[in-house]
Amino acid sequence: MPPPVPPDGIDPAWLPPAAFRPLGSRRTLIRGRGGPLVETVYGEVAEACARFGGSVGWGGGAACDLVLDVAGEAGDDESFTLVRDADGPTTVTASGGRGLLHGLFHLLRLGEGAFRGRWEPEVHRPALPLRMLDHWDNVDVHPVMGQVERGYAGGSIFWVDGRARHEPQRVRAYARLLAACGINAVAVNNVNVHETEARLLTDRIGEVAALAAQFRAYGIRTHLSVTFAAPIVLGGLATADPLDAEVREWWGEATRRVYDVIPDFGGYVVKADSEGQPGPFAYGRSHADGANMLAAALAPHGGTVHWRAFVYDHRQDWRDRSTDRARAAYDHFAPLDGEFAANAVLQVKHGPMDFQVREPVSPVIGALPRTRLAVELQVTQEYTGQQRHVCWLGQMWSEVLRFRLDGETPVGQLADGLVGVSNVGDDPYWTGHPLAQANLYTFGRLAWDPGADPRRVLDEWIALTHPGAPDALVSGLHAVLDGSWRSYEKYTAPLGVGFMVQPGHHYGPSVDGYEYSPWGTYHFADRDGVGVDRTAATGTGYAAQYAKVWADVYESAASCPDELVLFFHHLPYGHLLRGGSTVIQHIYDTHFDGVAEVTAARDTWASLRDLVEPSRHARVAELYEEQLRSAREWRDQVNSYFFRKSGVPDAHGRRIH
Amino acid sequence: MPPPVPPDGIDPAWLPPAAFRPLGSRRTLIRGRGGPLVETVYGEVAEACARFGGSVGWGGGAACDLVLDVAGEAGDDESFTLVRDADGPTTVTASGGRGLLHGLFHLLRLGEGAFRGRWEPEVHRPALPLRMLDHWDNVDVHPVMGQVERGYAGGSIFWVDGRARHEPQRVRAYARLLAACGINAVAVNNVNVHETEARLLTDRIGEVAALAAQFRAYGIRTHLSVTFAAPIVLGGLATADPLDAEVREWWGEATRRVYDVIPDFGGYVVKADSEGQPGPFAYGRSHADGANMLAAALAPHGGTVHWRAFVYDHRQDWRDRSTDRARAAYDHFAPLDGEFAANAVLQVKHGPMDFQVREPVSPVIGALPRTRLAVELQVTQEYTGQQRHVCWLGQMWSEVLRFRLDGETPVGQLADGLVGVSNVGDDPYWTGHPLAQANLYTFGRLAWDPGADPRRVLDEWIALTHPGAPDALVSGLHAVLDGSWRSYEKYTAPLGVGFMVQPGHHYGPSVDGYEYSPWGTYHFADRDGVGVDRTAATGTGYAAQYAKVWADVYESAASCPDELVLFFHHLPYGHLLRGGSTVIQHIYDTHFDGVAEVTAARDTWASLRDLVEPSRHARVAELYEEQLRSAREWRDQVNSYFFRKSGVPDAHGRRIH
Repeated sequence: MPPPVPPDGIDPAWLPPAAFRPLGSRRTLIRGRGGPLVETVYGEVAEACARFGGSVGWGGGAACDLVLDVAGEAGDDESFTLVRDADGPTTVTASGGRGLLHGLFHLLRLGEGAFRGRWEPEVHRPALPLRMLDHWDNVDVHPVMGQVERGYAGGSIFWVDGRARHEPQRVRAYARLLAACGINAVAVNNVNVHETEARLLTDRIGEVAALAAQFRAYGIRTHLSVTFAAPIVLGGLATADPLDAEVREWWGEATRRVYDVIPDFGGYVVKADSEGQPGPFAYGRSHADGANMLAAALAPHGGTVHWRAFVYDHRQDWRDRSTDRARAAYDHFAPLDGEFAANAVLQVKHGPMDFQVREPVSPVIGALPRTRLAVELQVTQEYTGQQRHVCWLGQMWSEVLRFRLDGETPVGQLADGLVGVSNVGDDPYWTGHPLAQANLYTFGRLAWDPGADPRRVLDEWIALTHPGAPDALVSGLHAVLDGSWRSYEKYTAPLGVGFMVQPGHHYGPSVDGYEYSPWGTYHFADRDGVGVDRTAATGTGYAAQYAKVWADVYESAASCPDELVLFFHHLPYGHLLRGGSTVIQHIYDTHFDGVAEVTAARDTWASLRDLVEPSRHARVAELYEEQLRSAREWRDQVNSYFFRKSGVPDAHGRRIH
Repeated sequence: MPPPVPPDGIDPAWLPPAAFRPLGSRRTLIRGRGGPLVETVYGEVAEACARFGGSVGWGGGAACDLVLDVAGEAGDDESFTLVRDADGPTTVTASGGRGLLHGLFHLLRLGEGAFRGRWEPEVHRPALPLRMLDHWDNVDVHPVMGQVERGYAGGSIFWVDGRARHEPQRVRAYARLLAACGINAVAVNNVNVHETEARLLTDRIGEVAALAAQFRAYGIRTHLSVTFAAPIVLGGLATADPLDAEVREWWGEATRRVYDVIPDFGGYVVKADSEGQPGPFAYGRSHADGANMLAAALAPHGGTVHWRAFVYDHRQDWRDRSTDRARAAYDHFAPLDGEFAANAVLQVKHGPMDFQVREPVSPVIGALPRTRLAVELQVTQEYTGQQRHVCWLGQMWSEVLRFRLDGETPVGQLADGLVGVSNVGDDPYWTGHPLAQANLYTFGRLAWDPGADPRRVLDEWIALTHPGAPDALVSGLHAVLDGSWRSYEKYTAPLGVGFMVQPGHHYGPSVDGYEYSPWGTYHFADRDGVGVDRTAATGTGYAAQYAKVWADVYESAASCPDELVLFFHHLPYGHLLRGGSTVIQHIYDTHFDGVAEVTAARDTWASLRDLVEPSRHARVAELYEEQLRSAREWRDQVNSYFFRKSGVPDAHGRRIH
């Protein structure tokens, strides 16, 4: 049982003291040259030893159970090697502090196993060099979006009411958690950069530097979201044209000043020409022009620009069925392949729309082989229950990362990085829902190893968060988490059709909520059928943005996977799915099933009461009541909506209102 | 052409200087005793004379064109008598200042006609003694509702950001406009009384007194919305139970203190047990108990409590078709008839729902013959275009006031008062849309004479606002205003079904926006039909709340008026209406017609360009573009929605998306 939230009011999440027992009860020697990250490692071991009676020292020779062997501090190498003879000691070797730190957290995951038996030399290195968490935190409280845009875990841990919070201890504890799951970069403000937030780049850069100092101690580089209009709004220039010499000079100088105070600054994140944000289109320039200008400013200092590919027409006319938001990112960016600078990273959402519970993998990811590319996932649960519902996304993310857009190479190998939108706030559990911690942990670990089995990652999270958990708790946590994403899918928007949420806040059902909106998010349900025709033959042609291996599959309703069939096709309610059910009966069945699964999960959780710390158990139990209420509302509204439209009764005669 | 908005930034509305020319260019004598209101009249005449060369004096004897004859200041008598011999002078006689003031404004309406020919003695007295305008103004800016709840004309003229505005000139100008159309009472804060607003009753009463001083000069009494929980939140008591002696004492004392500073204070307005506001239900007491407690506190001082009958379950389950919000006010209040104190007024919305463009007249109005009753209208256009659409409501209000619930007595005679929710803010035109001024004027005049022909009231408004208007302007204004309510009805929610608006702000269409909500506002459209069965035979029984003369009419779809048929019946799309069209074809036809009418109105307005002051013309022209855009959006969404559901094509083959 993990301890209750400690007196400082912050949950230890996957780093509770007890997780350090195997390490802290042994004798450790650190060999090699020190440096700040090695000091961090030393401090971690020393604190564990103080608690559990072990010892830690520098140098070699003495008898010990663990050797941490480090060549020096310098370098970006994050790899480490683990080896152990049958009679010990366990040895972790790294070329620098970064690798050593990752090795330390690897030891925690191994637990007692790290000190038993024999380990053949194992080299561990991250598959993706960029493993970044983006905070959509505002400095000012936004009148609509609040302190954290799409945040469901309280306020920001960085900012409050226009000011920096100045809580270094909390930021440091956060950096430690992120490092422990493999994240090495953080953007500290929202990609929608408002007036106050823009100034973080210039006169308020000191506040960013204070955060960077905490993240640096755990090997994490700090990034900043900037507005493309900065030369105008901050610099007083008449233009932000990326090819204008004065503009380029302004960015160069602004960037130099950033590096004066944050020497290891990671770079910029930019949302341009998207949902009202300014961008290069205003000057007749391409997004490559825009990104490259910032890349040029960052290059001398080793920084990177993350340029988001989330560009589409958000003032669409619902009457116009030829415009397809799903096509937009590909249409905008695929032609630019090869034009981006080496230190520009195109940041692409995993699906073509916006983090729905089910989307096809974005064809953009396979369309720019000569461009550095990061896949963006949404750890914060905007469309997946807003951290009031249990919805563990590891399974979904893993499917995306293992998807082979060209039939051969998985997404995890096409990408240079993985970016998550943070689900963290100033809530004592960090993530509001205590079980949503599993999403953050899983994100980090999949960024380190996109091919990992997500259930094994969940094993790790369970073992760390609940050290010594009895089998009943382990299997209980798997029971409520493993299938939670598919349960959520079942009781919400069916067959890949997406949206159907309440406008604005996006919580809870509204089948027609976005149907007549300007946002490009339609399902076109009428009395005969539902879905979006995105085929090349008769629809918007989106299906043809895929390589042939998938274009053919998606083009035909007969071969399209059921779970995406309404994303690609407008089908009659009586259409027979590959699974053997009709569209309408599938809608009814999955919605009844989804609620039944939530009920079962709630009951499973209730049965774990004696195995989970009471306040944590109580919070989850309470949230399950809301999840169940909400799931029933989804079921009833979606079923009633389609019953009223189709007139087809449920084959099993269940009650539809 | 009225002058542009004057340098003080406030439009003179229906009291432009030129409207005073007939009066101001003549010789006036005021006979009788003075007093504050007589002083006001004297000041008005003197200012007009200063501008137009006439004269005004006290006493009798001298040759003159106009005699204002007043017996004294005292009393509530608002009547006056007008008489004129063929060779003059015109004489207005009143027993006090109130009547004299009304007589003065009557002379303005008569214009030159007041001083020509012969007038047989005419006694003018208001049909309704209570003619009140309720401001839903907040003192603090409400995080959702803003400074003025459902306000579409800028900020409040009384409050800003938690403070009193202290703009006596503006309030006085406002009082003058209200008096000129016959209003004699104003409530200065929102019926939803939040924390800060509650304190207007006690430590902030001075701010109310300052407003009352301005209103008093034009014969208008000031009222205050109070929270039923005041004894708890302001008085520190443990209860607000209306039968508790301490509570009653607290209200008595609080009220005495109010009258200490506002001797002619009008009384309280209370929204209790409604949409989250506290009320007597919490203590197992009736609404009569609640109202009578406040009535008892006010009685010694001559005050009145306005108790709103807007009580219903706003946490309804859309799955439950037996609960009917339309029934609620009758079910709650009809059994209480005879129990209310003489100085308690039950304030009843004109329809059973909430100010939709078309509702039946509320049966509550005829159900409490032994209770004083005020009918509440919404001058602010929450559901009728939010002062971006031209929607003159005089026709609708007149139909309500002339409706005979018992087959004999019109509503205007059943009621003791008429209350309007104000459409005024700090906009230079007072009402945002310059033509929305006509709604405020018409409201006041119909309160004075509920039997008046609303088109004649519009004539008055046109003549006063545009003194000397050429025929083309008069007929143009009639053309754009007269039918605007019916046009709005045509392009929005059909056949009395109501709602279908965007949730929250209520602007623009969302056919299913309130369909699965807890607010009790449903249309139950499915692939076969639409509407709410409120019959006694098979529905909620609401129709039986009417006297037999109407219950029979509404009970059968064959006799129910078309414009209300979906309010009372759920009908197949193919049902033949009394007008000869099917339900679905009626929906299509009216929506195409409604947009065509807006287009025509816009063009008519454009043709008036040379006849209307340019900035006023430009503002209305600009608003017409938005109205037309919005009307098209309504047309297309509603038509598409019902086409998708019914599958019935338009008989005329027009484009439905």
